[in-house]
Amino acid sequence: MARKSDAPSDRTRLRRLHERGKFDAASVHAVLDAMPLCHVGYQIDGAPIVTPTMQWREGDHVYWHGSSASRFLRAANATQVCLTVTMWDGLVMARSGFHHSANYRSCMVFGEAEIVQDPADKTARLKAMFDVWFPGRWNLLRAITDQEVKATTVLRLPLDEASVKIRTGPPSDDEEDYALPIWAGVVPLSIITGQPVDDPRNHKGLPVPDHATNFTAG
Amino acid sequence: MARKSDAPSDRTRLRRLHERGKFDAASVHAVLDAMPLCHVGYQIDGAPIVTPTMQWREGDHVYWHGSSASRFLRAANATQVCLTVTMWDGLVMARSGFHHSANYRSCMVFGEAEIVQDPADKTARLKAMFDVWFPGRWNLLRAITDQEVKATTVLRLPLDEASVKIRTGPPSDDEEDYALPIWAGVVPLSIITGQPVDDPRNHKGLPVPDHATNFTAG
Repeated sequence: MARKSDAPSDRTRLRRLHERGKFDAASVHAVLDAMPLCHVGYQIDGAPIVTPTMQWREGDHVYWHGSSASRFLRAANATQVCLTVTMWDGLVMARSGFHHSANYRSCMVFGEAEIVQDPADKTARLKAMFDVWFPGRWNLLRAITDQEVKATTVLRLPLDEASVKIRTGPPSDDEEDYALPIWAGVVPLSIITGQPVDDPRNHKGLPVPDHATNFTAG
Repeated sequence: MARKSDAPSDRTRLRRLHERGKFDAASVHAVLDAMPLCHVGYQIDGAPIVTPTMQWREGDHVYWHGSSASRFLRAANATQVCLTVTMWDGLVMARSGFHHSANYRSCMVFGEAEIVQDPADKTARLKAMFDVWFPGRWNLLRAITDQEVKATTVLRLPLDEASVKIRTGPPSDDEEDYALPIWAGVVPLSIITGQPVDDPRNHKGLPVPDHATNFTAG
């Protein structure tokens, strides 16, 4: 359990439900490493914009990438962003509407985004992305070209301003409401990986690689 | 397939991959209705902040709620926000790193958030939230109190500036790469609902209600 004073900055400080907050590196890494899907918030023309993308972590930075033609990514260098990862683990059904909740693990990372400019560095980061998500796949692929590296923007954010929130367990009802004969409990939610579907244009007899079969998220 | 001119505003216009975009109400409703989890982007002190929450739709508005003590919600009235819903349907593994992608359905709603001020209106919206997510549950619960209504903030956003992006199907590789003996395909991802877990303090013999067993997301 985190104390309010553990927060690395004012905006990561939890105003309410402090017992749900964590700020240590292991907690931050655990959420980021469990779930590639994230939502990144930018400001465009003075208004917020939230886009889904996939993140990966290397050491004490989180990375994401996209097309160099993207208006979000072009606008993001050296600007404040917020990258949020959420795993929705369940519905929490209480005896009053007010105490319904969700079980979840989430991580918010705040800071100034930095575009990885050096082409060799950028290529190494893209390889690392594959190594994190699909170990061994990068070396099986047709090699990336200079033009493809140029057409890809890689961004990163240090993890020095990050917070984790986690809720688990049954509902917390008002004490007197436990006397009511109302069903309460948790409906678990989880992400499952289905059987990989071969591309119809695969060569005949190509086996599904382990990195496809074994991928998990959440 | 949408034409660029179908977009209701400049910021909903897709700059790239126009064939993935839709702007019609049925497409927007389909994504919002399939997935309560959303990420809302606000601006606090000139920087973006992205928070996970659950949304529901009534007609041509999307709603979300939270504690009246929340700094995000208090700050949001009459300010620009972006609410994004994403369903991550699969990994798309191509023959080159560059053409790897994700299958997904996402919806972004832009606009000025409005706090529902009238207590009777607010209570009706909270009941509607239950009717959307857990049909029949609201009337089984201990009734909401005036104090609980006061402690809850309900926000809404009109759906008149919304866009949907959808990607489905196998990878799209460079034509010459199909000659390579590299496994390509799609790894499907989906959310499953587990068996509801009784609150340990439930009265003995209370059956799990259908709205808990039948809940689905994604």
